[in-house]
Amino acid sequence: MNFHILTLFPDMVLDGLHTSIIGRAVENGLISIEAIDIREYSTDKHRHVDDYPYGGGAGMVMQPMPICDAYDDLCDRIGKKPRVIYLTPQGTVFSQKIAEELAAEEELVFLCGHYEGVDERALELVATDYLSIGDYVLTGGELPAMVMIDCISRLVPGVLNNDVSAEFESFHDNLLEYPQYTRPEEYKGLRVPEVLLSGHHKNIDTWRREQSIKRTYERRPDLLKDAVLSKKEQEYLESLAKKPENQDIQEENCKKGLAIDNSL
Amino acid sequence: MNFHILTLFPDMVLDGLHTSIIGRAVENGLISIEAIDIREYSTDKHRHVDDYPYGGGAGMVMQPMPICDAYDDLCDRIGKKPRVIYLTPQGTVFSQKIAEELAAEEELVFLCGHYEGVDERALELVATDYLSIGDYVLTGGELPAMVMIDCISRLVPGVLNNDVSAEFESFHDNLLEYPQYTRPEEYKGLRVPEVLLSGHHKNIDTWRREQSIKRTYERRPDLLKDAVLSKKEQEYLESLAKKPENQDIQEENCKKGLAIDNSL
Repeated sequence: MNFHILTLFPDMVLDGLHTSIIGRAVENGLISIEAIDIREYSTDKHRHVDDYPYGGGAGMVMQPMPICDAYDDLCDRIGKKPRVIYLTPQGTVFSQKIAEELAAEEELVFLCGHYEGVDERALELVATDYLSIGDYVLTGGELPAMVMIDCISRLVPGVLNNDVSAEFESFHDNLLEYPQYTRPEEYKGLRVPEVLLSGHHKNIDTWRREQSIKRTYERRPDLLKDAVLSKKEQEYLESLAKKPENQDIQEENCKKGLAIDNSL
Repeated sequence: MNFHILTLFPDMVLDGLHTSIIGRAVENGLISIEAIDIREYSTDKHRHVDDYPYGGGAGMVMQPMPICDAYDDLCDRIGKKPRVIYLTPQGTVFSQKIAEELAAEEELVFLCGHYEGVDERALELVATDYLSIGDYVLTGGELPAMVMIDCISRLVPGVLNNDVSAEFESFHDNLLEYPQYTRPEEYKGLRVPEVLLSGHHKNIDTWRREQSIKRTYERRPDLLKDAVLSKKEQEYLESLAKKPENQDIQEENCKKGLAIDNSL
């Protein structure tokens, strides 16, 4: 899978994506990440790529020519017209499901805006998708592009070895991950839960599953409505809602329409 | 405001935060960003910071000692015990509102996990907040920390000059930004809308406001319920819902409980 990032800060995106699992995936040829410097396509002798907005207003707007020329040049080079994701707080909010859909593409282009935005005509001409990583405002599209590339790359076959891939399956299951412990057995007076030291695999599995349910109930009850639980697990979840110490959570969830029905 | 990032990849976070507005804010002494290498606190001669999980399972878990020692060392150095944000898909989803709250802190620590996670006792001992940037799975906490630092830094007084600060106010207003245009007037047969060339400021303001409403209606109708609209703007919004070409959007929004009431 090949990622192409149209950006004013090529070093930033490359530096941020050469470590850890993604760096190894690049080295192993499973993915490639190319940063295309939009400024290289400026026709201005000062290499400007922005100008004042028509109609007035604060800030500068990125001009259409350098962006479209950079994209056209890429299409000529690879002989395809790949999807172009424009990173914007105005886009659809990115999710694991969107990542899965995008991971099926062979080539993906990310267009990173800066300043007050990008001339609308550049977007009409090249952008195919408008995506946001969340409801908050950032300086430019570079960090969102890096986030999406990290997330999508992990879904490309071979990038994660089988050991690690188990990690995100628990998230797919709509339950949060159970707590993890490693050596030493005791640290600053805090001991690893006995069940994890027991070697009794069935008990360990039950404990972990219950911890996942408990944690999801406490932190992200919105996920529970799509979680697949056994009858016994459903009972455990209902027992949590009945506990006096969980009354605050239950009331909070009630307000959000997420309460666990005690009457079942 | 001082950011301290506990990480296994100090270069990655520093490289990603030295450009553009954030880089300038660091140069001007408005914010500082420090990366603390957790590996420096390993007591192992091979500088290991992770070990197998108790109870079995895939992957490795980051040990509690290096993390707690790195944090204690920081607290001794600055003479305070700052808030520690643990980046995890299990946390509360980050938002502009949370960014505003965090921007009031003087010191903030970001703890970046890797592998299968972090020993639960390290979190019990040091983490004060659990935050996620969205419902998707990433390789580590570094990119989320960078995203949050970028977002929070922009709210530190002086980091944005007044010109740019207008940019995110439009997002606060619960309406998406209107389309932007800059030179040339015509590009590949696409012209800048006449109203923007008219010099008639009242018409320009009305057009931009309507474009914002239209765009929010088409792309993020969920935001409209909290938008503050004049009576005339409310009528414009209702007229959009009545247009035959918007029937698909209207049906889609109906399913999500977000339809505009035509009967008003």
